[in-house]
Amino acid sequence: MEQQTQQQLESFRNLARKIKSYHEAIGLLHWDLRTGAPKKGVPTRSETLGMLSTEAFKLQTSADMKSYLDTLTSPAVLEQLEDIDRRQVEDCQKEYDRSQSVPPEKVQAYTVLTAKSETAWEDAKHNSDFAGFSPYLTDIVKLKQEFIDYWGVKDTRYDTLLDMYEPELTVEKVDAVFARLKARLVPLQEKINASANKPNTEFLNQLFDKDQQEKFSLFILEQMGYDFEAGRLDESVHPFATGLNPGDVRITTNYLQDDVTSAVFSSLHEGGHALYEQNIDDSLAGTLLAEGTSMGIHESQSRLWENMIGRSLPFWTRYYKDLQQHFPQLSEVELEDFYRAINRVESSLIRIEADELTYNLHIIIRYEIEKMLFNEGLEVKDLPETWNAKYKEYLGIVPPNDGMGVLQDVHWSGGDFGYFASYSLGNMYAAQILHTLRKEMPEFDAHITDGNLIPIKEWLTDKIYRYGKSRTPSELIVAVTGEELNPDYLADYLEAKYTEIYKL
Amino acid sequence: MEQQTQQQLESFRNLARKIKSYHEAIGLLHWDLRTGAPKKGVPTRSETLGMLSTEAFKLQTSADMKSYLDTLTSPAVLEQLEDIDRRQVEDCQKEYDRSQSVPPEKVQAYTVLTAKSETAWEDAKHNSDFAGFSPYLTDIVKLKQEFIDYWGVKDTRYDTLLDMYEPELTVEKVDAVFARLKARLVPLQEKINASANKPNTEFLNQLFDKDQQEKFSLFILEQMGYDFEAGRLDESVHPFATGLNPGDVRITTNYLQDDVTSAVFSSLHEGGHALYEQNIDDSLAGTLLAEGTSMGIHESQSRLWENMIGRSLPFWTRYYKDLQQHFPQLSEVELEDFYRAINRVESSLIRIEADELTYNLHIIIRYEIEKMLFNEGLEVKDLPETWNAKYKEYLGIVPPNDGMGVLQDVHWSGGDFGYFASYSLGNMYAAQILHTLRKEMPEFDAHITDGNLIPIKEWLTDKIYRYGKSRTPSELIVAVTGEELNPDYLADYLEAKYTEIYKL
Repeated sequence: MEQQTQQQLESFRNLARKIKSYHEAIGLLHWDLRTGAPKKGVPTRSETLGMLSTEAFKLQTSADMKSYLDTLTSPAVLEQLEDIDRRQVEDCQKEYDRSQSVPPEKVQAYTVLTAKSETAWEDAKHNSDFAGFSPYLTDIVKLKQEFIDYWGVKDTRYDTLLDMYEPELTVEKVDAVFARLKARLVPLQEKINASANKPNTEFLNQLFDKDQQEKFSLFILEQMGYDFEAGRLDESVHPFATGLNPGDVRITTNYLQDDVTSAVFSSLHEGGHALYEQNIDDSLAGTLLAEGTSMGIHESQSRLWENMIGRSLPFWTRYYKDLQQHFPQLSEVELEDFYRAINRVESSLIRIEADELTYNLHIIIRYEIEKMLFNEGLEVKDLPETWNAKYKEYLGIVPPNDGMGVLQDVHWSGGDFGYFASYSLGNMYAAQILHTLRKEMPEFDAHITDGNLIPIKEWLTDKIYRYGKSRTPSELIVAVTGEELNPDYLADYLEAKYTEIYKL
Repeated sequence: MEQQTQQQLESFRNLARKIKSYHEAIGLLHWDLRTGAPKKGVPTRSETLGMLSTEAFKLQTSADMKSYLDTLTSPAVLEQLEDIDRRQVEDCQKEYDRSQSVPPEKVQAYTVLTAKSETAWEDAKHNSDFAGFSPYLTDIVKLKQEFIDYWGVKDTRYDTLLDMYEPELTVEKVDAVFARLKARLVPLQEKINASANKPNTEFLNQLFDKDQQEKFSLFILEQMGYDFEAGRLDESVHPFATGLNPGDVRITTNYLQDDVTSAVFSSLHEGGHALYEQNIDDSLAGTLLAEGTSMGIHESQSRLWENMIGRSLPFWTRYYKDLQQHFPQLSEVELEDFYRAINRVESSLIRIEADELTYNLHIIIRYEIEKMLFNEGLEVKDLPETWNAKYKEYLGIVPPNDGMGVLQDVHWSGGDFGYFASYSLGNMYAAQILHTLRKEMPEFDAHITDGNLIPIKEWLTDKIYRYGKSRTPSELIVAVTGEELNPDYLADYLEAKYTEIYKL
């Protein structure tokens, strides 16, 4: 490589590193806001966050960035680059193109609109007042449609949105996998509804000491191999994980006095996200590739740990006695009954409270509606009717009001269309990865029953975590499992699990 | 004002606001590092901190800043500015001139040198190895002497350093006040040493529950009027206060199991710093004037609360029964004995462990040595000998090794010459302010005995806190007390206090 090109590459790496540093500062400021920042400091804090985000954005779209990318994306140079550099260059080019294409005044309008809209949504949800939110949502959809034109329409307009959260994902692919999934899950759900063998969950309705909940969460995280020298556990209203850098990946959980399962499963969930970020390879440190490769793959790791390991019989065969030690009120409850209770399936209205099976139906509904909004001319005013019809069709229930229906999620108020699909993709990726993992590690169940979770963490590190964003989601899933995303693994997993639990 | 000038003023305010936002982010990153950041994230965090500091520095010395300052400092414009704008302009001009005058390669060399030097100092202190630290210190003094030339020599070379921490302070002034102070404190100290009425402190050597220490600290902070909606209390190895913005002023303390007084007095001390920052007027929000006006005035507030209120008899007349409730092991100890114990005076080697009286002698020693280094040709190699001679002269004791002597403080390893004086200035300012406060509030002692500390906080807010950096230290002390810094108030205060305690 010529010396001048080498210098451009060096400068590009430094610029990316600088952007990454801004992301770390922004991440910490957000974490702090959600874990205990004094409330009177919030307005100034928000201003500081806005300033840092603007600076990071300016660097990503700067003349310097353009000049480095122009040099480094020329085919002759690109093919000489090492893998990590090439990936980072491609990633930055994609970001650059996307940001450059929208006029700044449109970006500004969007920022102002979504800020107002989130407040309007909170009120509207609280009062079940769709009409009060509808004007904001109409404007957001309109502006987002304009953005799609600027960004460039892929196969369909909605494809452009999907690609933002899951690179290379298309409507064609999602349509196919969701159709297949729906075809298998709706009948399964109906059989479960009809089953007489419903788990008893009454014993979960007790009071559980918060200090003991925290102790048990810490214990489980330690068992998973969460590195407390590279992270910490705090409390927040909504649990989350945030990777500031691979040596500082923090998680939060929420201890509910009347529900011991909430903290346990959110610790497993956020712990799964955290294992991913903690185990990214050192060679990616300081690059923009030192993060999860997509929302879907990230979610696959939280759900693999939360559901496929954490709600399994082998897991509780090993850990139930520890839980009982922390909570003597469960001492009379049999393992089998506990296991069945934490796996109860029930049609419900609220996505975030849904079980492992119906969760996917909640997502499919949202995906179909978003696609209608962006590809098929559905109007915002008709959203509640469409929403309720789909809940009736897929889950057999109808929300009594819009607050518990179409207004329940924050996503649309912030313009995050295309995001929901990632949640179910996560479930499908997880089941597909689990299938390979079981094949390659025949002692998988035995390891869990022995409380030996580290080999599982290591297998996942070797196959997934260490690559960070240096492989695309589809490269990754093919490399790990030998095939593209295949919804049958999730359907197989759920059918097997619930056939046994509900004695179908 | 012309429209163009008005625009320049607007842009200047925005630039200052942006610098302030960087300071907030930097402050939070530091706070986090000292209160629980995972250790594996520290190297990357340090890089992020370095990046943000560099960006803030660049803005302060940018071409934009120069252009705004050129417009706004022209006499015709300056006299039209409102007080806050004018102060901020003057402040930024001073920073700009100081930063611009030193060539960047010298700044870089200084940064690298002090980073290495702090590590070398830690080892040297640990091993009492002055020879191991001496080469670093020699280089730092040499570079600092060069900086003084760039910054411009005031009356003497050391004046330039003093001014950095306490604007407008001069060697001439400090020489005068320290000479006066020494003349009164050294004999007082000798009389105390000779007194047969030594307080008994044996009962302080017990174990004290940490949770109770935290509860008592929170209680005292609440009594002082510390606003927990605009701050929080955490634990760290070295207690500190940090004002991110007036709505977010955090403090830390350190709970020692075998010493209940450490946490109590550090909470009062940091609480005093915090009251200052929490009560800066809203009109200064988002400006670079929204902070304490100098190290000395800041320290006056921590020491006024810690010593003059917190170690007073009225204070414990009110709060001793609360302390006893938290710590039943003190239930047999009389108030009078407790009060005398926390006010024991003793010649000792370590500054940070010194009592209210001898502390000032530790500072005078350091001030005299720094002045010799920068104004009188003292060589670094001769520091230990000079140090030990002064400890012998003023405190009657000699360090058994350099780790407990000349190597005890971190300041010089970071190049912070000129800083030490602020500590004693704080004591003197505090006593002088207290004198006025007592005069203007005759019920001062009665308020304290009643546990009614809020009027005191309000008086200090009205006279000092609300002005932030919009008044210079000397403007402030003259406005509050009617005269320039006068060391007699501190000497009077200490003589009266110890005459009674030691029955001199």
